Amino acid sequence: MELQSSAQELDAPTTITIKGILGLLVSSTDAKETGKRVISLGIGDPTAYSCFHVSNAAQEAVVEVLRSQKFNGYAPTAGLPQAREAIAEYLSRDLPYKLPADSVYVTAGCTQAIEIALSVLARPGCNILLPRPCFPIYGLCASFRNIEVRYFDLHPEKGWEVDLDAVQDLADHNTVAMVIINPGNPCGNVYSHQHLKKVAEMAKRLGIVVIADEVYGQLAFGANPFVPMGIFGSIAPVVTLGSLSKRWLIPGWRLGWLVINDPDGSLMSPKFVERIKKYCDINGGPATFIQAAVPEIIEQTQEVFFRKTINILKQTSDICILLVEDINGISCPTKPKGAMAFMVKLNISQMKDISDDIDFCFKLAKEESVIILPGIAVGLKNRIRITFAVEPSALEEAMERLKSFCERHSC
Amino acid sequence: MELQSSAQELDAPTTITIKGILGLLVSSTDAKETGKRVISLGIGDPTAYSCFHVSNAAQEAVVEVLRSQKFNGYAPTAGLPQAREAIAEYLSRDLPYKLPADSVYVTAGCTQAIEIALSVLARPGCNILLPRPCFPIYGLCASFRNIEVRYFDLHPEKGWEVDLDAVQDLADHNTVAMVIINPGNPCGNVYSHQHLKKVAEMAKRLGIVVIADEVYGQLAFGANPFVPMGIFGSIAPVVTLGSLSKRWLIPGWRLGWLVINDPDGSLMSPKFVERIKKYCDINGGPATFIQAAVPEIIEQTQEVFFRKTINILKQTSDICILLVEDINGISCPTKPKGAMAFMVKLNISQMKDISDDIDFCFKLAKEESVIILPGIAVGLKNRIRITFAVEPSALEEAMERLKSFCERHSC
Ligand SMILES: Cc1ncc(COP(=O)(O)O)c(C=O)c1O
Ligand SMILES: Cc1ncc(COP(=O)(O)O)c(C=O)c1O
Repeated sequence: MELQSSAQELDAPTTITIKGILGLLVSSTDAKETGKRVISLGIGDPTAYSCFHVSNAAQEAVVEVLRSQKFNGYAPTAGLPQAREAIAEYLSRDLPYKLPADSVYVTAGCTQAIEIALSVLARPGCNILLPRPCFPIYGLCASFRNIEVRYFDLHPEKGWEVDLDAVQDLADHNTVAMVIINPGNPCGNVYSHQHLKKVAEMAKRLGIVVIADEVYGQLAFGANPFVPMGIFGSIAPVVTLGSLSKRWLIPGWRLGWLVINDPDGSLMSPKFVERIKKYCDINGGPATFIQAAVPEIIEQTQEVFFRKTINILKQTSDICILLVEDINGISCPTKPKGAMAFMVKLNISQMKDISDDIDFCFKLAKEESVIILPGIAVGLKNRIRITFAVEPSALEEAMERLKSFCERHSC
Repeated sequence: MELQSSAQELDAPTTITIKGILGLLVSSTDAKETGKRVISLGIGDPTAYSCFHVSNAAQEAVVEVLRSQKFNGYAPTAGLPQAREAIAEYLSRDLPYKLPADSVYVTAGCTQAIEIALSVLARPGCNILLPRPCFPIYGLCASFRNIEVRYFDLHPEKGWEVDLDAVQDLADHNTVAMVIINPGNPCGNVYSHQHLKKVAEMAKRLGIVVIADEVYGQLAFGANPFVPMGIFGSIAPVVTLGSLSKRWLIPGWRLGWLVINDPDGSLMSPKFVERIKKYCDINGGPATFIQAAVPEIIEQTQEVFFRKTINILKQTSDICILLVEDINGISCPTKPKGAMAFMVKLNISQMKDISDDIDFCFKLAKEESVIILPGIAVGLKNRIRITFAVEPSALEEAMERLKSFCERHSC
C-alpha cells in the first residue's frame, strides 16, 4: 500500500484552533480536586447562558416555515431569493446605497463565508494580509488553499488600529486581499469611520480587496458606533462577511452571508463574481427552511432584544475591566468597545512561576477551573483573550478566581 | 487598479452544473404559447410533490429540539456526538463490523462531504478517477482544488458497471482516489456484491482510496439489494459519503456524513484522518439543532415511510421504461434499479432536425414545456437523463409529451 500512503501523505496544517486548545484546557481542569465548577471565558458562544437566549420570534419563525413543508427541497446554491433580499435590505440600512439582493450569497455561517472568500481569491503564489492578533480560522483556511499569509500588527495602544505602514510594506503584486475584523475578535475593537476610510484608501493604493469580517456587526457599546466597511465600497472593492450567529445569538443555526459591496459596479472583477457563484455549487450551504425564515427573523426580532444583549455586554465588559485593573500581573491598555472578547496583557516578569501565556492558562485551568484562551492561539504571545459574553455572576466568580490565581503566582 | 484585477484574474471553472443548464431550459419554455404547464424531469429533488413529503416524525423531532433551546450554540466541528453515534449505528446495520462514532463526520449534505473528501486528498500534481457519466459536482470540486480528473467509462450494457481495465490504465502514482456512485446518479445502477468487491480489489492493487457516494443508499428496487462499499473496508481504504437528503426526502435540511471505513484500523493514514478533522474547522457544517434531531429522525422514521418511497420509485421507473420502449428514436439498454434517475440514449440519426442532446432538450423544453437534462451535463453526449422521482400522473403526462415530441421529430 505504498501508493495509498503517498496519496494521503500531506500533513494537516499545524495552525492551532481555538476549539482545540480550549478542549485541552478543559481536560486539564480538576473540578473534583478544587471543588470549583468549570467556568469558561474561552469561546464566543454565549448561548449556554439563559440571558443570551434566542428570541421567541426567531425560533417560531423557523417552526412555522418548517411546518409549512414548503422548504424541504434544495435552495438555489447562492441562497433563497427572499433570504438574499432580506439580508440586502438589512445591511442597506447602514449604507449610503441600496445593496442589490444578488450581491448577497447566503452561507453556512460566517465561517463558510470566510472559506468562500479565500478560496475564490486563491491563485498560485498569492498572499493575503491578516491582522495580528487574528481569528485563527483565516490562517487555517489560507493554509488549506495554499495562500501565503502575511501578518500586519494591530496597535494595542491605539484601539487596535491597523498598522497601515506595515500593510504597505507587506503587500506586493501577489497580494490579493487584506482582512479586517470589526467589531473585533479577539480585540474588542470598534474602528472609527476615519480609520476605516484610511484602510479603504490603502487597499485602493495597493489594488487589493478588503475582506471585512463583520460577524459582530452592531455589537458596539463604546464611544464609536459600528461603521460597516461597505460604506467605502466605491473606494476599494469590499467583500463583507457576516452572520446571524452573534447579534441574534444563534451560532448553531449556521446562517451567514458573503456580500459584494460594489456600489458603482466597477471595482469588482466579473470573473471574481463568477467564481463565487460557481463555488457556491460545491458548498453545502445552510438549511433551506432556516433561509426561508430569515425575513421573519430579521423583521420580527425587536430592538429591545438587541438592546438587552448590548446592555449585558457593556455590563460584563465593565466587570472585566474593573477587575483586571485591580489585579497585579495583568493589564489591559485598550478597553473593549464591542464584540464579545478582549485581550489582556500578562506581565510575566511579575509572576514567579509562570513561563508564558500557555503555562498561565493551563495552571489557571488546573487550579481554578477557569478556562481562558492563551494569546498565542490568536497570534499574540503573553496575552490572554477573555470572553465576556458570559452570565454576569459567573463572570464575576471567574474573575475573582483569576485574581486569587494571579496573587498566588506573583513575585 | 491593475493589481486588483490581477488579484481577481482566475476564471471560474467552466464545468457545466446541472442547476445551470436546467435554469436555461426552464427559461426557454413557453407555457403561454404551448398552453402546457412546465413539468421537470430534471432535478433530483422530489420534495415538490406531496407523495414525496418528509415524515411527520422527522419534522416534529426538529421542532422539539429547536424549542428545547439547548441546541442554538456551536456543535463540535466534526459533529454533535449523538448525531455521529446515530449515523454510525445506522450504517453499521449493513456492515459486518460496528463503525465507531468517531469515524463519522457530520456534513452539510453529501455535497459538503464530497468537498471535504476531495479537499483533504488534494496535493500538488495529483489526479482522481471519476466515472463517466458522473454527478458533475465531483468535476467542479476537483477543478477548484486543482485536482486533475481522469474519467473511466461505465458500461451501459452491463448495468453501468465500472470499466476496471480503464481504471487500471488511467491510474498512476499520482492517483489519490476513485469515485463510485451506488446506487447511481445519473445511471440508476445498483451494483452487485461481486462487482463492488472487484472495485475494492482494484483500488487495493493501485493503492488508492475508494470514495463511495451512497447518497442514494437503500434506494434500490431491482434485483440487486443495496450493498454498502464499507463492507470491503478491509480490502481497500473506503470513504463513504451519504446524507439524509434522498431516503428521508429532506435535501434542503443539509445533513450528510463522511465516514472512514477502516475496520482493521490499518488502511487509512492517520495524517489523512488528521486533515479531515482540521478541515472540518473551516467548514460551515450543518445546523446544530438539526444534528441534535438526527437520532430521533433515524429511529422514529418508520419502515412504511421508506417502503412507500421505494414503491413509488419502482412504479415511476416502470412508467418510464414502458414509455421509452414505446418511443421511436430513444432507447434504454439498462433499466434503472435504484436511485432517482436513469440515462436514455438518443438515436440522433433517426431524428430529422435534432443535432444533439442539447438541441433535443432545448426544443423539448420550448415545444412541450418538459425539462430533461442533456447527457453532456453528466459527461455523455447524445443521451438524456430522466428523473423519475416525480408524482406518477405528472410523469405520465411528461412522458406522453416526450413521445409526441419524438414522433414529430423522427425521420
Ligand atoms: C471574527 C470571526 N469571524 C467569523 C466567525 C464565525 O462566525 P459563524 O459562527 O457565523 O460561522 C467568528 C466566530 O466566532 C469570529 O469570531
Ligand atoms: C450522486 C450524488 N452525490 C451527492 C449529491 C448531493 O447530496 P446532498 O443533497 O446530500 O448534498 C447528489 C444530489 O443529487 C447526488 O446525486
